[in-house]
Amino acid sequence: MCELLGIASSIATDFDFSFTFKGFSMRGGQTGPHADGWGVSLYEGPFARTFLEPRPAYGSALARFLRDNPIHASLVVAHVRKMTMGQAAIENTHPFLRVFHHRHISFAHNGTLPNIHKIPLAYESTVGTTDSEHTFCVMLEKLHKAYPHEYPKDPLELGRRLFDIANQLGEDGVLNFLFADGEYLYARCGDNLSLITRKAPFGEATLVDTDVTVHLADMLDPEQRVVVVATEPVTREAEWQKASPGTLWVIGHGELLETFRN
Amino acid sequence: MCELLGIASSIATDFDFSFTFKGFSMRGGQTGPHADGWGVSLYEGPFARTFLEPRPAYGSALARFLRDNPIHASLVVAHVRKMTMGQAAIENTHPFLRVFHHRHISFAHNGTLPNIHKIPLAYESTVGTTDSEHTFCVMLEKLHKAYPHEYPKDPLELGRRLFDIANQLGEDGVLNFLFADGEYLYARCGDNLSLITRKAPFGEATLVDTDVTVHLADMLDPEQRVVVVATEPVTREAEWQKASPGTLWVIGHGELLETFRN
Repeated sequence: MCELLGIASSIATDFDFSFTFKGFSMRGGQTGPHADGWGVSLYEGPFARTFLEPRPAYGSALARFLRDNPIHASLVVAHVRKMTMGQAAIENTHPFLRVFHHRHISFAHNGTLPNIHKIPLAYESTVGTTDSEHTFCVMLEKLHKAYPHEYPKDPLELGRRLFDIANQLGEDGVLNFLFADGEYLYARCGDNLSLITRKAPFGEATLVDTDVTVHLADMLDPEQRVVVVATEPVTREAEWQKASPGTLWVIGHGELLETFRN
Repeated sequence: MCELLGIASSIATDFDFSFTFKGFSMRGGQTGPHADGWGVSLYEGPFARTFLEPRPAYGSALARFLRDNPIHASLVVAHVRKMTMGQAAIENTHPFLRVFHHRHISFAHNGTLPNIHKIPLAYESTVGTTDSEHTFCVMLEKLHKAYPHEYPKDPLELGRRLFDIANQLGEDGVLNFLFADGEYLYARCGDNLSLITRKAPFGEATLVDTDVTVHLADMLDPEQRVVVVATEPVTREAEWQKASPGTLWVIGHGELLETFRN
């Protein structure tokens, strides 16, 4: 099992990343069983600054650097990896990144698609050996075919298409993923994904792993809205909603825009 | 003007990066006029860990982190950018990265190709607005056409092809570049590029900018060979050779393997 974490905020910020990621990264080897690598993509406009390590986040100098030098972002995709397929190497570490119509697409996967390698690739190719990266490449080629000239302007149209592609590919395995494009976050539940929306008044939030209480109101702008998606709830709040298998959420600017479900 | 720095070593190491990059990064805002951004790709096998910042390297927490936490690599592409085209934004910062046949290609450019945007792209696309990234995409599409199914096995064949492509594109501007694929470094001189090969006995090397003397023999393995390519020589040694315009060097495993010139 791996863990996915996505954050989409209405305002670029470094609050929630350092907060949520702190709890999340501690599961990367210390309080959880997720010990083979971690990575995070932080969007600055269409560009995803991406930091990856094929080692536990706990005790990592790079994870510490990111905590001490927070990067302003409104869209974040993070992943902590427990190796299921492929070796614990940097090229097998999520999120994976490709350029598609003038923006970085960042993709992190939780689950296994054991037969995905049977689908051949024409233009895209993998650097590592995971089923996850191959899945991402298959998805990108399908999107290139559907949108050969420009990026789809309507996020709900793209959401519907990703929902269909994921239903098709996900039939033969487990496909939880986060797919981000710099503006929107598409989150798909194969078997395990939860979401929470936060807005003022924020009150307190308690990290599940660490018993640390964080006063969100001190960190967030009163106008700010934030959606957090994670494999498991990363705080103890009751408002987390769990997706049913097959669900695809379209999230943008701190709001859940659409839910596609079977 | 920007500065290019490439290092190809016969053994993965962190010596020469921290050494050479130290002098190099100090030109990123302190002792030189290159102040708009910097980036470095460090190869671990076919994967290029890439760190970019649209701010001067001098005083950068990320550059300091890389100095304090050196990453083991045998192939390095670095760039310090003085903005000529495009804004000082992360998406315009070199090196640019794409996946081509199961490896990262890392590309850094020095010079300007003012009309390159007139060449349309079919599959590749830019994230930023530089002529450099567009040039890289044009080159990749030409390579995809020449090698649709797999990466060319012979680095000299690829070198010859890059030499031809560069001659063609470089006619209309200035095209100095570094193109790395995880194993080989292809370095092209438009108007300004120098190279040095180092092997035992190493003796001393003096950084041009800082008067720091480094005892290379303390850092390098006696069996190690290293090639350093840079816009301007980064040490005071006499052995630097300057390329004539149009030259393309093929470098691998610490050796200059081939020189293509007009």
